[in-house]
Amino acid sequence: MPDILHRVGVNAPLQPVYRMLSRPEGVSRWWTRKVTGTAELGGTLELRFKNDSLIMHMRVEELRPLSLIRWRVLAGPPEWIGTAISFELKSNGDESVVLFKHAGWKEPVEFMHHCSTKWGYYMLSLKSLLEEGRGTPHPDERPASSWG
Amino acid sequence: MPDILHRVGVNAPLQPVYRMLSRPEGVSRWWTRKVTGTAELGGTLELRFKNDSLIMHMRVEELRPLSLIRWRVLAGPPEWIGTAISFELKSNGDESVVLFKHAGWKEPVEFMHHCSTKWGYYMLSLKSLLEEGRGTPHPDERPASSWG
Repeated sequence: MPDILHRVGVNAPLQPVYRMLSRPEGVSRWWTRKVTGTAELGGTLELRFKNDSLIMHMRVEELRPLSLIRWRVLAGPPEWIGTAISFELKSNGDESVVLFKHAGWKEPVEFMHHCSTKWGYYMLSLKSLLEEGRGTPHPDERPASSWG
Repeated sequence: MPDILHRVGVNAPLQPVYRMLSRPEGVSRWWTRKVTGTAELGGTLELRFKNDSLIMHMRVEELRPLSLIRWRVLAGPPEWIGTAISFELKSNGDESVVLFKHAGWKEPVEFMHHCSTKWGYYMLSLKSLLEEGRGTPHPDERPASSWG
């Protein structure tokens, strides 16, 4: 099964990177502004997009402090249901490296191409947030016009 | 074998999109500033990165006006040799859609994660170029600090 893969090096220690990925108020600063729920192991995060017309639920399936976060998609776009989203962290000199994977897609459909581009964009949003204090979570993406 | 996939919708007709992908002077405005060679079928493009310390050669293997461009990597990073990079174009209402694929990776190595993120970035550079007149080809990427 095809996966979406990304990698960013972030000029920040592991601790703040992990915090931005493992807490609702962190995720709201780089992915989508509307995040609620609990980010503890076994908890469920709720994320809202497009004026609440798209609601996603992610169950937190794995949490290894400073090293790994994995979510399972319980609700969201049909192609996402049951897929797994993970963030693996490691140190690399002065940088923290984030290895992203969205695994479990059944087919490499056109929507998967779209999600791959957007995930890359949000990983760079995370990088900007940690390095410059400002991310571009939904609905603040730029260019703002339709991505399709 | 795993592929890198991306998709961008561009608010522009197919013709200028195809031009930016199929001519050296077009590619130099969204991917890397230094592009030479011939972009005709069977020709070879030469692209330079990192103060000329990285040189890539792409043979143009397929050229279908307004619909498909495919390159074969003859020289570049070792993991890229022999891989194929393609851009499929189609109309979608007022937009042009670019479906990107970098196929033929042997393994989903960490470098592939990195290249996936950078390809997404350059596809958005192409979108900005066509919609706003300004891309961010290498070495103009932002944030400018190491991407790893």
